[in-house]
Amino acid sequence: MVILTEKQKNEIVDQQSYSNKTKRVVADELEKILYKTIPVLDHGFIRVVDYMGNDSSIVQAARVSYGKGTRLVSEDKGLINYLMRNRHTTPFEMCEIKYHIKLPIFVARQWIRHRTASINEYSARYSVLDKEYYIPNSENLASQSSSNMQGRDKVLDGKEAREVLDILKNDAEQLYRNYSIMLNEDEDGEIKNANNYGLARELARMNLSLNYYTQWYWKIDLHNLLHFLNLRSDNHAQYEIRAYSDAILDTVKQWVPLTCDAFENYTMNGVMMSEKSLNVVRRMLDGNEVAQENSGLSKREWIELMTNLGRDV
Amino acid sequence: MVILTEKQKNEIVDQQSYSNKTKRVVADELEKILYKTIPVLDHGFIRVVDYMGNDSSIVQAARVSYGKGTRLVSEDKGLINYLMRNRHTTPFEMCEIKYHIKLPIFVARQWIRHRTASINEYSARYSVLDKEYYIPNSENLASQSSSNMQGRDKVLDGKEAREVLDILKNDAEQLYRNYSIMLNEDEDGEIKNANNYGLARELARMNLSLNYYTQWYWKIDLHNLLHFLNLRSDNHAQYEIRAYSDAILDTVKQWVPLTCDAFENYTMNGVMMSEKSLNVVRRMLDGNEVAQENSGLSKREWIELMTNLGRDV
Amino acid sequence: MVILTEKQKNEIVDQQSYSNKTKRVVADELEKILYKTIPVLDHGFIRVVDYMGNDSSIVQAARVSYGKGTRLVSEDKGLINYLMRNRHTTPFEMCEIKYHIKLPIFVARQWIRHRTASINEYSARYSVLDKEYYIPNSENLASQSSSNMQGRDKVLDGKEAREVLDILKNDAEQLYRNYSIMLNEDEDGEIKNANNYGLARELARMNLSLNYYTQWYWKIDLHNLLHFLNLRSDNHAQYEIRAYSDAILDTVKQWVPLTCDAFENYTMNGVMMSEKSLNVVRRMLDGNEVAQENSGLSKREWIELMTNLGRDV
Amino acid sequence: MVILTEKQKNEIVDQQSYSNKTKRVVADELEKILYKTIPVLDHGFIRVVDYMGNDSSIVQAARVSYGKGTRLVSEDKGLINYLMRNRHTTPFEMCEIKYHIKLPIFVARQWIRHRTASINEYSARYSVLDKEYYIPNSENLASQSSSNMQGRDKVLDGKEAREVLDILKNDAEQLYRNYSIMLNEDEDGEIKNANNYGLARELARMNLSLNYYTQWYWKIDLHNLLHFLNLRSDNHAQYEIRAYSDAILDTVKQWVPLTCDAFENYTMNGVMMSEKSLNVVRRMLDGNEVAQENSGLSKREWIELMTNLGRDV
Repeated sequence: MVILTEKQKNEIVDQQSYSNKTKRVVADELEKILYKTIPVLDHGFIRVVDYMGNDSSIVQAARVSYGKGTRLVSEDKGLINYLMRNRHTTPFEMCEIKYHIKLPIFVARQWIRHRTASINEYSARYSVLDKEYYIPNSENLASQSSSNMQGRDKVLDGKEAREVLDILKNDAEQLYRNYSIMLNEDEDGEIKNANNYGLARELARMNLSLNYYTQWYWKIDLHNLLHFLNLRSDNHAQYEIRAYSDAILDTVKQWVPLTCDAFENYTMNGVMMSEKSLNVVRRMLDGNEVAQENSGLSKREWIELMTNLGRDV
Repeated sequence: MVILTEKQKNEIVDQQSYSNKTKRVVADELEKILYKTIPVLDHGFIRVVDYMGNDSSIVQAARVSYGKGTRLVSEDKGLINYLMRNRHTTPFEMCEIKYHIKLPIFVARQWIRHRTASINEYSARYSVLDKEYYIPNSENLASQSSSNMQGRDKVLDGKEAREVLDILKNDAEQLYRNYSIMLNEDEDGEIKNANNYGLARELARMNLSLNYYTQWYWKIDLHNLLHFLNLRSDNHAQYEIRAYSDAILDTVKQWVPLTCDAFENYTMNGVMMSEKSLNVVRRMLDGNEVAQENSGLSKREWIELMTNLGRDV
Repeated sequence: MVILTEKQKNEIVDQQSYSNKTKRVVADELEKILYKTIPVLDHGFIRVVDYMGNDSSIVQAARVSYGKGTRLVSEDKGLINYLMRNRHTTPFEMCEIKYHIKLPIFVARQWIRHRTASINEYSARYSVLDKEYYIPNSENLASQSSSNMQGRDKVLDGKEAREVLDILKNDAEQLYRNYSIMLNEDEDGEIKNANNYGLARELARMNLSLNYYTQWYWKIDLHNLLHFLNLRSDNHAQYEIRAYSDAILDTVKQWVPLTCDAFENYTMNGVMMSEKSLNVVRRMLDGNEVAQENSGLSKREWIELMTNLGRDV
Repeated sequence: MVILTEKQKNEIVDQQSYSNKTKRVVADELEKILYKTIPVLDHGFIRVVDYMGNDSSIVQAARVSYGKGTRLVSEDKGLINYLMRNRHTTPFEMCEIKYHIKLPIFVARQWIRHRTASINEYSARYSVLDKEYYIPNSENLASQSSSNMQGRDKVLDGKEAREVLDILKNDAEQLYRNYSIMLNEDEDGEIKNANNYGLARELARMNLSLNYYTQWYWKIDLHNLLHFLNLRSDNHAQYEIRAYSDAILDTVKQWVPLTCDAFENYTMNGVMMSEKSLNVVRRMLDGNEVAQENSGLSKREWIELMTNLGRDV
């Protein structure tokens, strides 16, 4: 549930009522959801705050055009497919989008590894953080995978799950209570104890845990955004960041549908096949029996290839 | 004189007639010149093709706001000044602009050293370049500076200037003639000699000189654009790139006037003063006579400082 | 106190005993401290793990030299000063350095805003974090500044300080205890409760607070490193990141002493003076009385200028 | 044939005689060719000028290790393969290399599109360019491809080839002659005509053609270098830049052999297979006849897939 104050709700409604005239190209479907909060996880959200360009901008830049650059929809679609397939990535940099995002700090720490974006984060040196923290749903409360050191396995069952949820909740509550005590502020920002100074915000924040929510403005071009989506909507990505990535992918579909189609076919749902894997496929197509032992592939690579080919391992 | 075909003119007129509705913020003054060709040098131009955000977007991002983020104009102006003065550069990355630019290749080679931009250049591997080359005006036909190895000095006088202009013009004409011969194409792209194959475009282009015009789409965020303008509208920059930079600066004033004011005061017309120079100023303000010899500054630094302080050297 | 296991100590001693031959240029003073842990804060450290180039590499690249590029030390020094003074930054990108750094997560979160660096961070998805957290010294336990929203003011006095330290310590201990319980692991990584699965590491970590230590390899070129130092050794930077920045600055002095001198004079201890401030200085040098009211400067700017000029406000 | 003055030759010999001690890791095979000019095209070269790290540095960073990080060669190889296969690219950024490169300007213009590198180019504003220009071998003098607008086709035959070579050579000679006249300098840099000022270098250079050689120092990390090699050693790349890329690839093999093996298998000689192509392969493996018409692929995609699978089109 996205938690908004009345003031915040009104500000968003106000933005949604804008009706400006522009000579720029627009993305009509995206306009419909502009400024809207799209919920992610228990208290997080994404919302599109601004954008530049649409599918036609890619075509226009690729052609270094004097005019709008686009011709028939079929030709534009063909060119976009061609560009995506041949990794001619620069025209996709010609579109830009900006999001306002509320997310747990541990997700923010993964997110920021994508360096080719612009960010303005809410400053906990300057302001007091809200009391909002992430608690997973019980169906996402998974155990450590023993085969994949970076992954999850079975969902914890009843008792253990309840213990974990209790710990997370109680600790988060206690931390915020102590954060307020150290700041010497109550919930309304009033001073609690006239004899105390209150610890500087930039110090007090260190007592909060990584599941506390932060928020930022995040601006990125379409090429780098697709790279983000390819990594973060992948099933190796941690569930929590994947939830954000999937929500963003939905907005990209509204924004640049032709590009999104090409991306899904050529990149996101495509696979990179190594030279050795390709040799295995060739041998199989020639009617040879190939087993992992004589494939030249490691066991993991073999399993991955067979999975990609839709064959039993 | 910007050279446009009828088709190109019509395409631009078509773009200028767009009237779309958007919920995004707009920059009204910039809208007025959107798509318009603004002439630079003898055949070059810049034109704004798209943009995202305006002054209010900087304020909004700095505040990580739920709404439009701006308050009173005076408060917004104060915040923008504060950000510029204290080099809080990230909110300025939240605005983006895209230009279509026609420029001589030797200018393009300096320009592209700015790496934090997106570029799509007209491809001379793929297409035949137009016969358009840069010839300086005689008032820009300067001699080599002997004091500044990267600079110019006096303007060449009559006879020498005429010889130089003749050389530049004749060589450029001859090169294009031979370019066409090697391509085995006439001006309309028709084959000239049925017995010849025609050299590949990617090879034939190597015979053109660096004053031939190329063109590109160039997209950059406001922070990095201001950095470009600070370096390229500086009087140490080569005249030809400065002409483009000055034209761009004019468009930035239409786009984000508050930011542009702050930029001119704090950055462009400000100076970086070294620790040693600052010591000199302090001593002077204390009423001491300071000469270069006892200043701790090199001769060049001394001259620069005195010039900045408006004092005789 | 840097906490190292016996194994870690031995590995570092082993590295320090390397004696390889190379045709590359070396930085003799930096070699002496290579691999050494240099303590920062209570449990953090930096250590130089590798480097490329020295002062001579900057000169060599600026001259695009066939040989070593350097001449007399005085000429090299002059060229480096010239490059620094005129913001010819690209030659400084030609040197590179790599650090292994242990730092609290809230410091890491500020640090990573510098995007032009390469980072490999210890993964808490993959591994269990150590029980090491930052507790400030009491002389760094400052109150919130009321004039500067991002700053600190007076140090907390005895009782309040003790309360804060108790909170920080007790909460950190409790969080780690619960982290271990959720992981279902004891300190040696053994399973605690055979009936429990143990929560995935990527989830359990969210319960740790921002003063827990993380570590990373951080590689950056000299130009971007100087930019980092200029911002983070500044007295507006939070004390905790400044402690790291200062320690790094010391290593840079060992590495590229000529560059470091130029940096301190022209950048770090220099000031950016706005057009309006410069006008004030000119008027003062002309013997005019100038007060804030008729200076064209805001109150803050006036104070800053007077401070820079060493005059009473 | 690489053209070097006696002075340049001696400077290089001098560098090759360095024998410094270092605690850093070294790459023994790369040390053997350090500073050596490796010829490319008719007058170009590359030479490795400095480097940081080797295969072990990748392993060390991936493990965020206190020591050298490497274990058995087989384990290191396995980890490097794993990182490459799963696109965990950051550890490959931990190695850095620097080249001195002499190359035609039209090649430099393609090259510089790779933005994640540091460059210092020989300045034709500051210095006079040498009289060295690129003339293709007759076996590289290919005609324009009619099927691939960016490609080449048949080699030109005798007469046409001779005409093209004559044009290229004569024009290049004439341009340099006129360049010297405009500069008012003879070959030794002496003034030719005492009555003339000589045109500024920054202007005179515009008369040179794109096959003239320039040179630069180019520094890049291993990850971004591999990306460069993947694009530029590809058979869609223009022959002239491919020649440089291939020469660089050879030096990378000396530097980081394990990484280079992984790169060739997983990236360079691997293929990206789209979702639709993968479906075709699955259908074929299931024993179905698939033709382009019922494949869901465009004609070009079909040809590419069949080629990759080693099957007749």
